[in-house]
Amino acid sequence: MKHFVALLFCIFLLNSNAFSQQRIRDLGIEPGVLPPGPKNSITDVDGVKVGHTSLIKGDSVRTGVTAILPHEGNIFKQKVPAAVFVGNGFGKLAGSTQIEELGNIETPIILTNTLNVATGMNALIKYTLNQKGNEDVRSVNAVVGETNDGYLNDIRGQHVKIEDVISAIENADTEVEEGNVGAGTGTICFGFKGGIGTSSRNLPESLGGYTVGVLVQTNFGGNLQIDGAPVGEVLDQFSFRDRIMDSADGSCMIVVATDAPLDTRNLKRMAKRAILGLAKTGGIASNGSGDYVIAFSTSEENRVPYKIESDLLEKKVVPNDLMSPIFMAAIEATEEAIFNSLFIAETMTGFKGRSIKALPMEKVIPILKKYNVIKE
Amino acid sequence: MKHFVALLFCIFLLNSNAFSQQRIRDLGIEPGVLPPGPKNSITDVDGVKVGHTSLIKGDSVRTGVTAILPHEGNIFKQKVPAAVFVGNGFGKLAGSTQIEELGNIETPIILTNTLNVATGMNALIKYTLNQKGNEDVRSVNAVVGETNDGYLNDIRGQHVKIEDVISAIENADTEVEEGNVGAGTGTICFGFKGGIGTSSRNLPESLGGYTVGVLVQTNFGGNLQIDGAPVGEVLDQFSFRDRIMDSADGSCMIVVATDAPLDTRNLKRMAKRAILGLAKTGGIASNGSGDYVIAFSTSEENRVPYKIESDLLEKKVVPNDLMSPIFMAAIEATEEAIFNSLFIAETMTGFKGRSIKALPMEKVIPILKKYNVIKE
Amino acid sequence: MKHFVALLFCIFLLNSNAFSQQRIRDLGIEPGVLPPGPKNSITDVDGVKVGHTSLIKGDSVRTGVTAILPHEGNIFKQKVPAAVFVGNGFGKLAGSTQIEELGNIETPIILTNTLNVATGMNALIKYTLNQKGNEDVRSVNAVVGETNDGYLNDIRGQHVKIEDVISAIENADTEVEEGNVGAGTGTICFGFKGGIGTSSRNLPESLGGYTVGVLVQTNFGGNLQIDGAPVGEVLDQFSFRDRIMDSADGSCMIVVATDAPLDTRNLKRMAKRAILGLAKTGGIASNGSGDYVIAFSTSEENRVPYKIESDLLEKKVVPNDLMSPIFMAAIEATEEAIFNSLFIAETMTGFKGRSIKALPMEKVIPILKKYNVIKE
Amino acid sequence: MKHFVALLFCIFLLNSNAFSQQRIRDLGIEPGVLPPGPKNSITDVDGVKVGHTSLIKGDSVRTGVTAILPHEGNIFKQKVPAAVFVGNGFGKLAGSTQIEELGNIETPIILTNTLNVATGMNALIKYTLNQKGNEDVRSVNAVVGETNDGYLNDIRGQHVKIEDVISAIENADTEVEEGNVGAGTGTICFGFKGGIGTSSRNLPESLGGYTVGVLVQTNFGGNLQIDGAPVGEVLDQFSFRDRIMDSADGSCMIVVATDAPLDTRNLKRMAKRAILGLAKTGGIASNGSGDYVIAFSTSEENRVPYKIESDLLEKKVVPNDLMSPIFMAAIEATEEAIFNSLFIAETMTGFKGRSIKALPMEKVIPILKKYNVIKE
Repeated sequence: MKHFVALLFCIFLLNSNAFSQQRIRDLGIEPGVLPPGPKNSITDVDGVKVGHTSLIKGDSVRTGVTAILPHEGNIFKQKVPAAVFVGNGFGKLAGSTQIEELGNIETPIILTNTLNVATGMNALIKYTLNQKGNEDVRSVNAVVGETNDGYLNDIRGQHVKIEDVISAIENADTEVEEGNVGAGTGTICFGFKGGIGTSSRNLPESLGGYTVGVLVQTNFGGNLQIDGAPVGEVLDQFSFRDRIMDSADGSCMIVVATDAPLDTRNLKRMAKRAILGLAKTGGIASNGSGDYVIAFSTSEENRVPYKIESDLLEKKVVPNDLMSPIFMAAIEATEEAIFNSLFIAETMTGFKGRSIKALPMEKVIPILKKYNVIKE
Repeated sequence: MKHFVALLFCIFLLNSNAFSQQRIRDLGIEPGVLPPGPKNSITDVDGVKVGHTSLIKGDSVRTGVTAILPHEGNIFKQKVPAAVFVGNGFGKLAGSTQIEELGNIETPIILTNTLNVATGMNALIKYTLNQKGNEDVRSVNAVVGETNDGYLNDIRGQHVKIEDVISAIENADTEVEEGNVGAGTGTICFGFKGGIGTSSRNLPESLGGYTVGVLVQTNFGGNLQIDGAPVGEVLDQFSFRDRIMDSADGSCMIVVATDAPLDTRNLKRMAKRAILGLAKTGGIASNGSGDYVIAFSTSEENRVPYKIESDLLEKKVVPNDLMSPIFMAAIEATEEAIFNSLFIAETMTGFKGRSIKALPMEKVIPILKKYNVIKE
Repeated sequence: MKHFVALLFCIFLLNSNAFSQQRIRDLGIEPGVLPPGPKNSITDVDGVKVGHTSLIKGDSVRTGVTAILPHEGNIFKQKVPAAVFVGNGFGKLAGSTQIEELGNIETPIILTNTLNVATGMNALIKYTLNQKGNEDVRSVNAVVGETNDGYLNDIRGQHVKIEDVISAIENADTEVEEGNVGAGTGTICFGFKGGIGTSSRNLPESLGGYTVGVLVQTNFGGNLQIDGAPVGEVLDQFSFRDRIMDSADGSCMIVVATDAPLDTRNLKRMAKRAILGLAKTGGIASNGSGDYVIAFSTSEENRVPYKIESDLLEKKVVPNDLMSPIFMAAIEATEEAIFNSLFIAETMTGFKGRSIKALPMEKVIPILKKYNVIKE
Repeated sequence: MKHFVALLFCIFLLNSNAFSQQRIRDLGIEPGVLPPGPKNSITDVDGVKVGHTSLIKGDSVRTGVTAILPHEGNIFKQKVPAAVFVGNGFGKLAGSTQIEELGNIETPIILTNTLNVATGMNALIKYTLNQKGNEDVRSVNAVVGETNDGYLNDIRGQHVKIEDVISAIENADTEVEEGNVGAGTGTICFGFKGGIGTSSRNLPESLGGYTVGVLVQTNFGGNLQIDGAPVGEVLDQFSFRDRIMDSADGSCMIVVATDAPLDTRNLKRMAKRAILGLAKTGGIASNGSGDYVIAFSTSEENRVPYKIESDLLEKKVVPNDLMSPIFMAAIEATEEAIFNSLFIAETMTGFKGRSIKALPMEKVIPILKKYNVIKE
């Protein structure tokens, strides 16, 4: 009899493991039709690195910083072609107008909380001014995005410090942690714990052979649909379920990297597609949501040098006619990155004792099976 | 034995009927969480009418015109607040810059094929110049959208005539035909026969009580997902399936009407959400797709008179904070309108003997059951 | 005594000649600091041609067509990088969203009157479909601008015909007539007769050696300032002089060509500068003014082929840092082109017997001398 | 002989006085045709206040802060309708995307130097969080503009502190100092000392009776033209005079206030006109120039409350058709504000011993007389 109980317990443990937080592909969920890159991460785009500083202190601090580095060199001196698309502009993204005008990014990209954007800017300015070779730099277009983690985090305390931002940059690596880390430490997505997620797509050689990688900071609402399955509805948790003006608000910062040599116009078009990926998860880009996409190309030959050495820049760029697979890749990777953020994030208790539950795997997995998303 | 054969045949007929083209709600497919209006049509928005002229002539002409009337009066004299969002601008929408600048629409909205936009404009100009009371009008901002039906239609023949456009306006009614009618006569969607579709959502009083109605002209590609079910993948028909640069191209014109008193800024925000609805169907806004959203408000008190009679316009508008349910309604109605276009359109043979099959109900229904979209 | 009278008369004639309509440089007026090209015309940009059809018929028809050809080849097959900037969008420019999305122009640019834009589009479509090599073309983004000549012209009659547009294209030449020709036949500028004007600037080799050429169709109002001299005020003819809501309205179409190899982003920036040139003439971009700038680059190596033959487009483009002289050239050439239109246009009587006077040289020249614009 | 020398000296002094820095109207220069308000200042718009903190320390610190307050109340709780127009986006304006999305401003507007934008943001956030009644605020859209004063100022030292920003807000007043003050302390304009300038226009009752006020922070280049007179050319000081790629760069921040009840769309259109005023001074919006216009309406009844109390906002707004005089006012006030900044600013020596001369009145006044701008 004892043995039998022990056996049951083991089965329970195994099942429990089966329900612990995992990336969605490990659960057999595979949105879209294009294959992911080896890491299924934004860092599949060669040269891209990501670093986090997670601030979890005492009862109230649940925030952090995520840094995305487009390449390993001096970014100010070797700017990358870039574009921004504003899905919904209730947000404080720093740097967007200069990206739009000049078509490039000259700093790492920082994500943090709403009231620490200035900290992120200041850190990027100091980081850039102090970099070797930048002694004569007098203008820095710091790129800092944010979402509002003020439910779980004492956001009014502005707990992120300049050194936290520098630290995220310096820790940047090709291995990307997801869930309750960095700028995702205190975020909420579809009413569950959100966070950082990442994913990528590799195009076959016949479609260009490019890689598109996405990183998201998820903090938004709507009607959660996981690879098509109406999880929000089945769990009875979705925006306006109670027919009252509840808060569907929140934001989603999306960073899209590619090694495809895109000019800024086609980068903007690719950025626009990321919002389609968000839509597929059930996001509605609610009034209060700051939904921004920052896209850049790592293509070495199209980098923009700080000091121009000739009268003409030579570029090789993907023609319009070959953009569609890249668009599809951006959509799929965004959708999957959002799910990864949700599936990895764990229950978090924070400011004022508030708690946000992780996506309840024990309920979600059966739904996904019922809806044939996970094949039995 | 004979009887048995006859019985089988009857069963086949019945099944065949069961699989004939129907609106998705009649099949038990109900995307989203908000309820549709009584007609589940753009004409649930009070005052809105839709008319079609379908041109199916000989072997080669498969095109037409769809007219959307924002209200029953003289639209030039009582302009409606409006906005345009360009999802992907590979298209020939006439009138967009003036809508953006002045914030209103002063003609019916015409949809037709790519090479007949000028015909649509000319018809709207003549229609407006000839309307009673417009004798002094010398400037008309004709709003004409299009998609390219050149696979099934001899588009180079420019077969739409001014009288076809006028006829669509004059036939406008609150009953809206869908599928292979009007501007959707020759269109293709996800590789199946597309066409015209419509849907609506009613918000409960507690969320404003407004109606949002959508009409689409579907002519685009991607990876068809029906209320979440991966129909394109299961049918093995989706963009880049063969890993070659096939044509995912095509376009989607989306018209969103609402009785919510929205100013042009919030109309543009609502328009932007319609593309999220398109995304949920698996559309990827491919390079060659002209994906445009035209949004207008029928709210009587916010109409813009041709001749201003006082120094100030009095308006009542929905505040930003109450927009989110309207956004959700626009997303859901767009998704459902696209499905209706696909589910109603029938197989069409046209130009050069080319044929595009209707969505194969006999295959799709089982898939939708397997994926629990249609409950058994 | 008789002889004396005759002598006076001769002097009058001579003076009258002195005051006849001339290009401003022939009068010693030289706005800006950069030198014009040899023709001081948009056609100084190599390959660019301009053709007019002027329709002056009976008492009421005072309109026409102006065609600008970016190069001499098949434009559809060799598209030119292009951009549009909307100064004020009360206008009916056709083709703008596709230019914005794809970054190129694939037809000649047509200017005409407001109610004949559709005619212009239809003509461009037919012209393109019928061109050798375009037998498979099924989509044409016709670019047609307009201003409203309805004061002098029976605009409701829509007197421009398709053959008038084709004729303007076919007559295109490097010699550009100005004043009451083509699309400028019936236009009004600062209350005087406007029309077509052109000008150019050559940058010295040390600033890139590029040419920027501008053509304008002037039909707008404000407070005329000629190379700085307050001509409108001195003549007591300017917008709101009578402190009543008179019509400052009208429009200005501006086409800017350059041989500088600019990508679409920098073409848009250059286009934006043309409005600064308009500002210097005293234009105010009034509510009713359709002020659009269409800019393109003729640079051969950056042309966009209809059928892509390789996976990457190689481009050489001017870097951001070298754009400022090109901006200055666009400003100066626009200012001068507007003045040329005014100084060449002659008094025109038209629809309903209305008459618009030419800029009164006998009054303007002395003002310009008084204000030291023309050195004595 | 001695007496004669003394007499000469007196004459010199008098002349010198005559040539000291004065606002242009005091010199008889009156750009445009509309009358200024009583103060000829942005503070002629009722409720608007301006405060400066000027930092002139030791050899190297030449910078500061200028704060513009749209009204005297809690701006976060009573937001003002607003819009931004980007003339040229080489700049770091914080807050623009949210203004574009939501159509309002919720903080004072801060101007400072390029590398202290984050300081400005942080100060605005702290100011707002600490305001009475804002205890629950967790999101603040700080609006901070900048120009680069790094030639005269040790900009890399980031010398502006949070308390400097707060101090500028707290010192705000209806009397506005111009020239080398606040954010204009270290700026350069057309190669001369620039700074802060302001001006306004009053429309007659028949044109609406509204006031438009402008404040500028001038730090840009081009070809200076003062009320039409080609001062830059006569002084032989203008961009690209030496035919080399010198720096025409710099920026211009423009703030436009009006009591006209404009919605955000028409505020954006008004903002766009301010760049036309900049153009009239000879500005060319060079590549490196961050030329931004922030416009807002003080109209009390259109303010946007933080907490919505009813389902509809009632607004009274100026119709499109009555906008043109407001456009003209914005153009004229911007032009004059720029001149005031130049005419008031005095020679400044700063970082690394560099010195920028004031506009040389002794040379400029004669030029203006010669060109009849100042009547003799």
